[in-house]
Amino acid sequence: MKRTIAFDADDTLWHNESIFHKTTLTFKDLVSHYVSPKVLEGKLYEVERRNLALFGYGIKGFMLSMIETIIELSEGKVNAIEIQQIIDLGKYMLTHPIHVLAGVEETILALKDDYKLIVITKGDLLDQESKIARSGLADYFEQIEIVSEKDEKTYAEILKRSKIDINNFLMIGNSLKSDILPICNLGGKAVHIPYHLTWELDKVEKPHHFNEQHYVTLESVTLLPQFLQENTF
Amino acid sequence: MKRTIAFDADDTLWHNESIFHKTTLTFKDLVSHYVSPKVLEGKLYEVERRNLALFGYGIKGFMLSMIETIIELSEGKVNAIEIQQIIDLGKYMLTHPIHVLAGVEETILALKDDYKLIVITKGDLLDQESKIARSGLADYFEQIEIVSEKDEKTYAEILKRSKIDINNFLMIGNSLKSDILPICNLGGKAVHIPYHLTWELDKVEKPHHFNEQHYVTLESVTLLPQFLQENTF
Repeated sequence: MKRTIAFDADDTLWHNESIFHKTTLTFKDLVSHYVSPKVLEGKLYEVERRNLALFGYGIKGFMLSMIETIIELSEGKVNAIEIQQIIDLGKYMLTHPIHVLAGVEETILALKDDYKLIVITKGDLLDQESKIARSGLADYFEQIEIVSEKDEKTYAEILKRSKIDINNFLMIGNSLKSDILPICNLGGKAVHIPYHLTWELDKVEKPHHFNEQHYVTLESVTLLPQFLQENTF
Repeated sequence: MKRTIAFDADDTLWHNESIFHKTTLTFKDLVSHYVSPKVLEGKLYEVERRNLALFGYGIKGFMLSMIETIIELSEGKVNAIEIQQIIDLGKYMLTHPIHVLAGVEETILALKDDYKLIVITKGDLLDQESKIARSGLADYFEQIEIVSEKDEKTYAEILKRSKIDINNFLMIGNSLKSDILPICNLGGKAVHIPYHLTWELDKVEKPHHFNEQHYVTLESVTLLPQFLQENTF
């Protein structure tokens, strides 16, 4: 029985937060005659946080939150043309080219014969499917799980349904909150590979009950094959 | 090995299109000073169709399409307060109570010991999960599949992954296009239970290659247990 390595997708396999970051800059610019960039940014996070339980993760919810944010901050003065421009920003995000992170494909090629490789990602169903297809990486993965939330319950359910023993499972991802913590709390092991940007709502304080022995941080995904030769999980 | 019965969810297990219908009426009313209800309806379908490949199915895409429709039809005159009202209509849809269709729960209770019951539904991931949870029906189903499109490829993939022989599989749903046709084209059997409303983009001409022997139409889900006693699949 092969051991399983699960990869997060956004900001682990390909650039993603950088697209949100770039769009937020354009958004700030677009409405700078109503509000300062700093106030806009704070309010946008607040609105996204407020809408998260209803909208879930993903670009469509982000578009709606941008619109709500500027309606509120402009006190209803933002006009329809500007709102269409915000929608167009989101549409552009949905078709944005997928830039696979440096070293990802070589690493996958080095691992694919020895491990069962899967993807576990959260977000909008169609958008995540489309990104996986456009990344050119889909064929390397035996299983692709798109979920609405990456918490202990979700991971436990995937492992159970897929008949994967957590002792033969390793999670790889950039988000301590979504990729690392829940797996460690389930007694599993994880490799944290930070991305240079972290979405505000994905930031997490390292909690006291977090057992550091269960995860390591690597600077780059290219270090993974050697790490796995020197350490078994 | 139990045979598998798969239920579509929206308009098969619970009312859904009626909520879109009601929202569309309110939307027409809200913007009637810009455009006639008839013109609005035609344009809304056109915008939804145009956006479908980008947004996929679901309420968030519907919200964005409503906004785009009225920006276009009002020639940019629709104001921010009205756009917020449109967003609020969509938010209300996302929290709308789930009304399980008459006879559904009794039918499921009558079938659950003899068949493996699953759900196959398309739409926004979080919204579909939330509706299944709120319906109170989740525990009756051994498997819940939320997909971005219900076509032959998707069904074939689910059957393969779940190790379900199509000869031991029956699909139940209200949509000829999404629930019945693809299964019949794969050589499987289906039961069509029409809902009193069909979404414009889910309407389909019955194609010439469609083999009628592979599906039957029942007026109500309550007729299913007796039908299954008289007919095996």
